[in-house]
Order: sequence, then C-alpha cells, then structure tokens
Amino acid sequence: MNIIDIINKTKRAKPLSEEEIRWLVNGYVSGEIADPQMSAWLMAVCLNGLSDENTVALTLAMRDSGDVLDISGIGRVTADKHSTGGVGDKTSLIIGPAAAACGIAVPKMSGRGLGHTGGTIDKLESIPGFRTELHFAEFSSIVNKTGFSIISQSGDLCPADKKMYALRSSTATVDSIPLICASVMSKKLAMNADCLVLDVKCGSGAFMKNQEDAGKLAKLMERVGSGAGKKCRAVVTDMDQPLGCCIGNALEVREAVEILRGERKGRLYELCLDLTAEMLALAGKGDITACRTMAQEAVGSGRALEVLRETIRLQGGDARVCDDTSLLPQAEYTYDVRATEEVRLESVNCEELGMASLLLGAGRLTKDAPIDMSAGIVMHHEVGDLISADDCIMTLHSSVCSDFSEAARRATGAVELVKFRPNYT
Amino acid sequence: MNIIDIINKTKRAKPLSEEEIRWLVNGYVSGEIADPQMSAWLMAVCLNGLSDENTVALTLAMRDSGDVLDISGIGRVTADKHSTGGVGDKTSLIIGPAAAACGIAVPKMSGRGLGHTGGTIDKLESIPGFRTELHFAEFSSIVNKTGFSIISQSGDLCPADKKMYALRSSTATVDSIPLICASVMSKKLAMNADCLVLDVKCGSGAFMKNQEDAGKLAKLMERVGSGAGKKCRAVVTDMDQPLGCCIGNALEVREAVEILRGERKGRLYELCLDLTAEMLALAGKGDITACRTMAQEAVGSGRALEVLRETIRLQGGDARVCDDTSLLPQAEYTYDVRATEEVRLESVNCEELGMASLLLGAGRLTKDAPIDMSAGIVMHHEVGDLISADDCIMTLHSSVCSDFSEAARRATGAVELVKFRPNYT
Repeated sequence: MNIIDIINKTKRAKPLSEEEIRWLVNGYVSGEIADPQMSAWLMAVCLNGLSDENTVALTLAMRDSGDVLDISGIGRVTADKHSTGGVGDKTSLIIGPAAAACGIAVPKMSGRGLGHTGGTIDKLESIPGFRTELHFAEFSSIVNKTGFSIISQSGDLCPADKKMYALRSSTATVDSIPLICASVMSKKLAMNADCLVLDVKCGSGAFMKNQEDAGKLAKLMERVGSGAGKKCRAVVTDMDQPLGCCIGNALEVREAVEILRGERKGRLYELCLDLTAEMLALAGKGDITACRTMAQEAVGSGRALEVLRETIRLQGGDARVCDDTSLLPQAEYTYDVRATEEVRLESVNCEELGMASLLLGAGRLTKDAPIDMSAGIVMHHEVGDLISADDCIMTLHSSVCSDFSEAARRATGAVELVKFRPNYT
Repeated sequence: MNIIDIINKTKRAKPLSEEEIRWLVNGYVSGEIADPQMSAWLMAVCLNGLSDENTVALTLAMRDSGDVLDISGIGRVTADKHSTGGVGDKTSLIIGPAAAACGIAVPKMSGRGLGHTGGTIDKLESIPGFRTELHFAEFSSIVNKTGFSIISQSGDLCPADKKMYALRSSTATVDSIPLICASVMSKKLAMNADCLVLDVKCGSGAFMKNQEDAGKLAKLMERVGSGAGKKCRAVVTDMDQPLGCCIGNALEVREAVEILRGERKGRLYELCLDLTAEMLALAGKGDITACRTMAQEAVGSGRALEVLRETIRLQGGDARVCDDTSLLPQAEYTYDVRATEEVRLESVNCEELGMASLLLGAGRLTKDAPIDMSAGIVMHHEVGDLISADDCIMTLHSSVCSDFSEAARRATGAVELVKFRPNYT
C-alpha cells in the first residue's frame, strides 16, 4: 500500500478497502504518513465525501489507535451522550444525574473548551475544589456509587483523532460530515458504554447549519454506532439560540443546579428530559413516554440533584453549591445591555455571542490560556420576546475585563432586534 | 488575509482575489503558510478547479517569487518552447538549431529528468565535455553568436514552483490542469522570451491522457501567456508512442543529429518542422506555410546542424559528435527483444517503456542518482508495423546492467503485439 494511491482513490471518489483505511490511520499516528499527505486526503474527503462503509472503517481504526476502556466492572447498564458542540450547552450536567437517578450509569469523559464553544470540564472546574483528573479506578468507583461521574480525557484515548483534529483545524478541513462523525464516534466508542445518545445541534451556533446536513450526520452516527455493536440513537436539536439563558462556566453550573432544583423550566429543561428519556429507552427501561415520565420524576423529586451533590463531593468539590449557588465564582464587574426603544428579539447568532463571552474571559483562544470562571453572559430574553425601552436584554459578567465596550459591541451585534410596530389592522 | 479563509473559498469553488493569491504564494515561499495548508489548498484546486483569472494570477505570482530574466540584450526576436513531458522527446535539440538558423534566438533553460521522463540537460551532458551550468553572461553571449543555447535552470527562478512541485509530487496533487499550467508557464514567463510555443503532449506517455484535457490545457496556457503580454501558441501533439525511435540520453542525441543531417524523416522530423514553423510565425517571419518551408530548408541545407555544432563547441562539448555519433557514450551490453511469431505492433505504453529504460540506467528515481548516459531503448518499429517471426522489435542498451531479464520483461509488457492473421476474404 502507498499513500499516493490512497489519496488518488479518494480524489477520484473511489472507495478504499478497510485495510487501506487502517494503514492510513496507523501510518499517520506513527509518523510514516506526513501531515501534508494527510491534509490532502482530508480535503479530498471534504469535497468527495466517504462511503458509509469507509466511515465505519475510519471510525474503528481511529478508536483502535489508542486504548479502549474496559468498563465492564460497572454494575449497571452504561450510557454515554454527546452533543456536537454548541454555545451555552450544559445538558451533560443535568442529563447525567437524571439518568443515574433512574438506575443506569453515565460514565463520561469530556473536553475543555476552545474558541467560542465551552467545555464541560471547564464548567465543572468552576465548582471550588472539583477534581477532573481522576485515575480510572476512582472514576469507576464513583460511577458505581452515584451512577455518574465526569472526568477529563485521560490516558491514550484516540491519539489518531487528536492528531487529525489539530491538522483539520489548521487546514480548513473541519466541516465534513464523515470526518465529524468519525471524530466524535471514535472517542465515544473508545469510552465503550453500552448505549449512546447523540445530540446533533443544528443552527447558527452549531457545526451543522441546516437540517439536511444535521439529519445526514445523525443517520451516519447511528449507522457507525450500530456497526460497532452499540445501541445508538441520534437526535437533531435546534441551536438557533443559546441553550438556556447562561453562557460561561460558573453561570452555566448555576443554571444546571437551578434546573435540577426544579426552579427553571423552558427549552433547556425539556431537551434534557427528552435526551434522558432516549438514554433510558436505549437502556431498556421502557418505552420513550414512560422513560420521559421517569426522567421528569427524577428531577422533580430532587433525586437527580442528590446524584450531582454526591458526585461533586466524591470528586472533591464543594457540594454546598447545590444549595447555595453564590458559592460559585461571582464576577467582579457586570454590565447591562439595554434596549433603547421597544423591540422584538428576532434572532441570536450563537457563535457571535460565544465570541463575546470569550472576550469577557469565559473561554480560551489557545489551548493553554487561563479562563475567568466567573465570566459570561446572561440572556434575559428568548427569540420572539418583546422588550420594552430601557429593559435589560442581557448582562455581561467578568472579573478580568472592566471595560465592556468591545464585548458589548460584539454581544449587541449578535442579537437581531426589530423595532416593534403594533399591528392596527 | 488568512489561510483558512483562502482554503475555504477554494473549497467552496469561490474565486480568490489577485491579492489573496499573491499572499498565498509569497506566504508559502516565506514559510508563513505551512505545507499541510498548501497541500489542502492544492487538493481543493485539483477537485474544484481554478478560474482562468485566478490561474493567470497564480502563474504571475509564482513567476514573481524569484528572478525574471532580462534578455533584452539579445539582438534578435527571442522564442522559447516547452513540451509537457514525454518519453523520448528530443525536439528541443532539433527545433532550437532550426529556428536559430532562420534568424530568431532560442535561449533555453531546461531541467533534468526524474522518473520515467528524460531531461534535456541530461541528454546534452551525454556529449563529452558539454557544460550546462553557465553564467548568464556566457549564455547570453552564445545565444548572440549562434542564436541557440540550452543551460540548466540556475539562479532563483520560480522558487514557488520548486517548493509547490515537490509538495504536489508527495501529495497526489499533480494532475490538475490549472496547476500544471501555472507550473509550466511561471517558469517560461520568468525566462521572458518574446514568443512561446507550447507543445502539449497527449496520450499514454503524457500527463494529459485524452484530447479534451490536452485541449483545455493548451487553451489555458495561451490565455495565461497572452495575459502576461507574450505571443503564445499551444499545440496538442500525439504521445501514444515514443517520439522517434530512441529513448535514453546519448541515443537521443544521436537521433537528433541524424535528423539534422537529413538522414531520418518520419513523425519526429515532421513535428519538429511544425513546431519550428509555429515559432517563426509568432516571431513575424511570415505565414505558417512559408515558415514551414523556411524550417525545412534550414534542416535540409545543413545550416541547423551548423548551429548545433557551434553551440556544442562554445559550451565546451566535443562538436565532432555532429559528424561521428560513435563518439557519444556507447553501451557495453545490448539485448535484442525479438518477435516469437509474426505479429502486428498494436500499441505502445510510453510510460512503461520509460520505466524499462529507467531500469537500464537511463534515468533516475531520486533527484541526485547517477545516470548511465549510454543506456536506453531503440525501437525498430512503429505502431501498425508488421513484424516477422524472429525479427527484432527493440534493442535494450546498458553499461550498468548486464542482466536484462527484468528490463526486458517490463519493455515487452509495454508493447502490445497482436498475432498477425492475413485476411483472405
């Protein structure tokens, strides 16, 4: 086998053999295949696509490039969940405890944020004392006790994906459905849970900008998951406005706690119940309607909050945040963006709002940059709301940035406001 | 400007601005743009093409990445010629002297061979003493005296092309019409001759395997040449069988000398007259018919041979080879491939024949490998010829390889022989 033949085949939209794909992935990890060769192949995939069979083979080869976890010691059916990026997405902090409270196990590894998207690990680290770098034995033991734990990706999981993702970021080869699928699924399959729920975000704040592409990605992920012997369900959810009202690490933990305390309802709450129900149904807990009722009861009864509290305690965090969210980092400065006249909130560009949040200190532009845990944005309205003159549209939070002019400019640019004209006809 | 935006535009088949293309080329030469980014862009061009305007801009940016020669000191109209690779192509050694004998100047820089294609510089170096690494002043003075000189590429001509070509070879991004055009034309435009004749080879021994692609490349080259203010003519010529009967450095010089001595006619001779006529017509020497007659007289009268003889002498070579080709390197070993029964020569795979010649020592697989100047193949028949049983089809020559089994196997595989069946109806 040689790399020129393999690139040429994909360039001519011809399928590769499973052996060729495995050779490509292993050769790239070992360094035998050079970055420019891999980036040429990736661009050919972006433009010509990849067959479903080849996508399955690519995903499995990437999974097998590193460790595949043995979580057979966990004494319950295991389930994992993935969302394809998003702004203000704190669903893992709600779904994990809710599903665990219903009797299944949710052992999760998660990543840190980069650019305008936040990372679940960063969010959890805003809880004072919370440790995310646990050895597998401790992680496994917490999951056995509470049914839920999240740690940062450790060990040698999917080195092929790490190397390929870094290359894709620098060569404009990110937005390919088969490549996104292989990247997500290889990591999920290396985690090795029995059931997989995949939440494909669609809209201005997500990779997938339209329903058609989101649907394709969802179908492909299910196909790859089933191909690898997993129970797998992918759903497409709207990401045309932020999920919930908060963006930013401590602010998002606060919102998740408020949901689990039953103090907040709305889109985020409903979506979390939906996804939890999908997980439970895959795990054989009943039909989807029954599972949704179970999920609702787990939240309503406070049992889901109890799981979160115990997990925080076992991971070294200050579990009192579940009762008093003011123990989370609070911003030193805040700034209200107000309506200058009566307007309707027409749309929100989530990516731009994420960029504004990043300017406030809530995210990182480079891999090792520090984060202001208290920073972020609280939206006071949803798309469609009428906002009176001088009413507050959103509040910016930061401890590192006292001059809000640039962030406010960007955040204001991210919301489309239409002058309200009452209809007299 | 940033590289991600530029790659994305080409990936989405949107045109780039002239400034973006210049920034891309200059950034790549300076190292600011990395190999994997350039190879992703090149693959996007291979699959989505490049507009004519963008191809002109790319060619000019590549030309301007290095020196552009000032050949205004040459006291005649200057003309240059390029063939897009081929097996056994020794036309430069015939056309240059013929055109010079008709009163125009042909100052040429040429390359060395790599893989199955031969290089004109290697061919000339088979003449004992011939120097190809001349300073510009000496080169220019020879052209002023004889009207013709060929030296190896020197100075800092088109560094962008050198770097891009090496990358393309290793990333399967060679076969793109706009990229081939930009590579060839940037070098030709840096040479800066007034008139350009481009010989686009089409067939099994050439980059362009079919008439449609060859025609596209020819048109695009003319467009780019005119866009740069040159008189430019591109013609498509057949490369379904070797040009002339000899492949290999000294063997090809011998064949060129025999043509200039009027001892050989045939396809090679006719093509050389055609291309010389195109050059003369571009240079304003008359219409194409009159120019062809002039070219024929230049060869027939021996004046073209006289130009070659004088140029060889001025470049330090043994000019007696023009009278006695046995002074050229002769192979120590030869091997005749014979027909085992009466057959017709149906077709020749030029690339495979070139590979066989390479095995005999006539070419190099890596950039600095040595060459056996005496090695090569002499074909005794053309496509369509009937060959009697035991008649010699071709003779293999080598001084470094006395065991001909592998080369003979490959050379035999390169010719398609059909059992001759007389038609009695």
